[in-house]
Amino acid sequence: AAMAASEEDEKEEEELRQRFMAPPVSGLRELRRRRRELRSRMELLIMETQGEVCRALAALDPGAAFAVDTWERKEGGGGISCVLQDGEVFEKAGVNVSVVFGLLSEEAARQMRSRGKSLKAKDGKLPFCAMGVSSVIHPKNPHVPTMHFNYRYFEIEEADGTKQWWFGGGTDLTPTYLNEEDAIHFHKTLKEACDKHDLKLYPKYKKWCDDYFYIKHRGERRGIGGIFFDDVDSPSKEEVFQFVKSCAKAVVPCYVPIVKRHCHDSFTPEEKLWQQLRRGRYVEFNLVYDRGTKFGLLTPGSRIESILMSLPLTARWEYMHTPPESSREAEILEVLRNPKDWVH
Amino acid sequence: AAMAASEEDEKEEEELRQRFMAPPVSGLRELRRRRRELRSRMELLIMETQGEVCRALAALDPGAAFAVDTWERKEGGGGISCVLQDGEVFEKAGVNVSVVFGLLSEEAARQMRSRGKSLKAKDGKLPFCAMGVSSVIHPKNPHVPTMHFNYRYFEIEEADGTKQWWFGGGTDLTPTYLNEEDAIHFHKTLKEACDKHDLKLYPKYKKWCDDYFYIKHRGERRGIGGIFFDDVDSPSKEEVFQFVKSCAKAVVPCYVPIVKRHCHDSFTPEEKLWQQLRRGRYVEFNLVYDRGTKFGLLTPGSRIESILMSLPLTARWEYMHTPPESSREAEILEVLRNPKDWVH
Repeated sequence: AAMAASEEDEKEEEELRQRFMAPPVSGLRELRRRRRELRSRMELLIMETQGEVCRALAALDPGAAFAVDTWERKEGGGGISCVLQDGEVFEKAGVNVSVVFGLLSEEAARQMRSRGKSLKAKDGKLPFCAMGVSSVIHPKNPHVPTMHFNYRYFEIEEADGTKQWWFGGGTDLTPTYLNEEDAIHFHKTLKEACDKHDLKLYPKYKKWCDDYFYIKHRGERRGIGGIFFDDVDSPSKEEVFQFVKSCAKAVVPCYVPIVKRHCHDSFTPEEKLWQQLRRGRYVEFNLVYDRGTKFGLLTPGSRIESILMSLPLTARWEYMHTPPESSREAEILEVLRNPKDWVH
Repeated sequence: AAMAASEEDEKEEEELRQRFMAPPVSGLRELRRRRRELRSRMELLIMETQGEVCRALAALDPGAAFAVDTWERKEGGGGISCVLQDGEVFEKAGVNVSVVFGLLSEEAARQMRSRGKSLKAKDGKLPFCAMGVSSVIHPKNPHVPTMHFNYRYFEIEEADGTKQWWFGGGTDLTPTYLNEEDAIHFHKTLKEACDKHDLKLYPKYKKWCDDYFYIKHRGERRGIGGIFFDDVDSPSKEEVFQFVKSCAKAVVPCYVPIVKRHCHDSFTPEEKLWQQLRRGRYVEFNLVYDRGTKFGLLTPGSRIESILMSLPLTARWEYMHTPPESSREAEILEVLRNPKDWVH
């Protein structure tokens, strides 16, 4: 049995409780007790990020509130899903935390690692732990872009007891119409977060993002990018964690100013229709290509409603829709086909 | 050079031309010349089916008309896409013919055969020919079900010159609300088409349909089924072709009476919303599981607009939507979770 927490500990715990949307999956007391372990620090970070983002978004949409669902996974772990649906500003905004563990089939483990490193299993099963915060925000106004972010940490134990660990994540923007000022602000904020750690990171992860969010059958990217990385296990656990933390802290400053700037912009029915067609493309990417979604649909006991929270409230597919040349619709398509550098 | 066709030949050709939506990919003269070959007979059948279905649907939606696009595939072959969008009765109705040939990678060939038969390639490439008619009809009224059918024929030539061939296809119904009379009519019409050939076919292909159109992550089928078969290469090419022909001829009698019966039914905004949520599930099945769609997205030079024609005009995803117990929405869900036998 743990000793009674000191008064200071209790104060800290209370502060954390107020910043979180729900009690953490691993229990606050337990996380605090093991606060030196990276797993605990990462779980505290994703909980804190969820709270920060939800509060910032809720402040922009005063009539609406996040519904908070906590769920358990019978195979081990659970999560906290926060969803705001049909608000004034947001059509659907979801911020999801999950902390799951248990045994993974070799096939599922292979799906997990983008570089396909081989993993040696005992009896075909690998003990694993996966945790992350992931979010997709679909606003109503077609002049406010959709934003997605995800920061995650994995551990897998091989047959000989070796622990493999890695981080993944990224933040990216999907506008319906191009606004250069927004694009520059978004990328600049991400670059600043990266540059604190290593000047090579932003250019590398910006390109990775353009490559990853590629809808191959359309020849277009899902959006105007941001950063994306996966399977990162160097230079050291501590350094990668610090980098991930900077990225997570950059989510609100990346996005909130853009929402504020445009959420009262007027728009036409034609602009709303173009948004709906772009939402259709978002669905195509997420269901056909997104590794996180595929992995989720494959993982036994995963929570479908939380995985598919990323899908927009509404979407549209028109046969052979082609915007007129030199239109604002053609302008964004051009950037989705040929990604640009927004900051140097 | 071919000899001039006799007067009778010309009359027959003229009749076919009037029944088709566009000139066939392989050319009418060529098809008539090689009319004894199964490839030609199948191409004539799919062209005829396209014409029959388009005319029957257009007659139900007098204000609207099918737009006809013919397209070529630079690697070999082409197709004819007929689409009616935003009519009075139909939200989006597409009937597509494609006849493509060329060389297939071993991976794509493996994807083609559901039973994963091994195919021996020369230099990793296999000459193939694939043709079919496929269609998805999404009506506006939530009391008119969505219908899908597809009939297809494949040939692959192995390194030693052996030709493998097989047929696939099926017709299935996706209602928003259950109507038992419609379900029985639909299945009975299909059963009659099957029973003419072999009494074992309907029960076998009815079950295959329930198994195939399974949205695993939801634990539901896409609809109330019909028939589905793939990779069928016995008892003989001729017999399978005759069976496929009976199925293709059954499409209009399966579906048209149901559309007529309900296209003027009144409906509430809540019923329309439920339809939109079910459309979302349709998208999930087609993008995540459907082998035809996956194969299309993988095939180099395939026509994306024709493949994704199957997606509805509009769809909706609500987080954690659950219909109340004993509602009509719960009634259809029950049948999607536990398929029923509609005819014995």
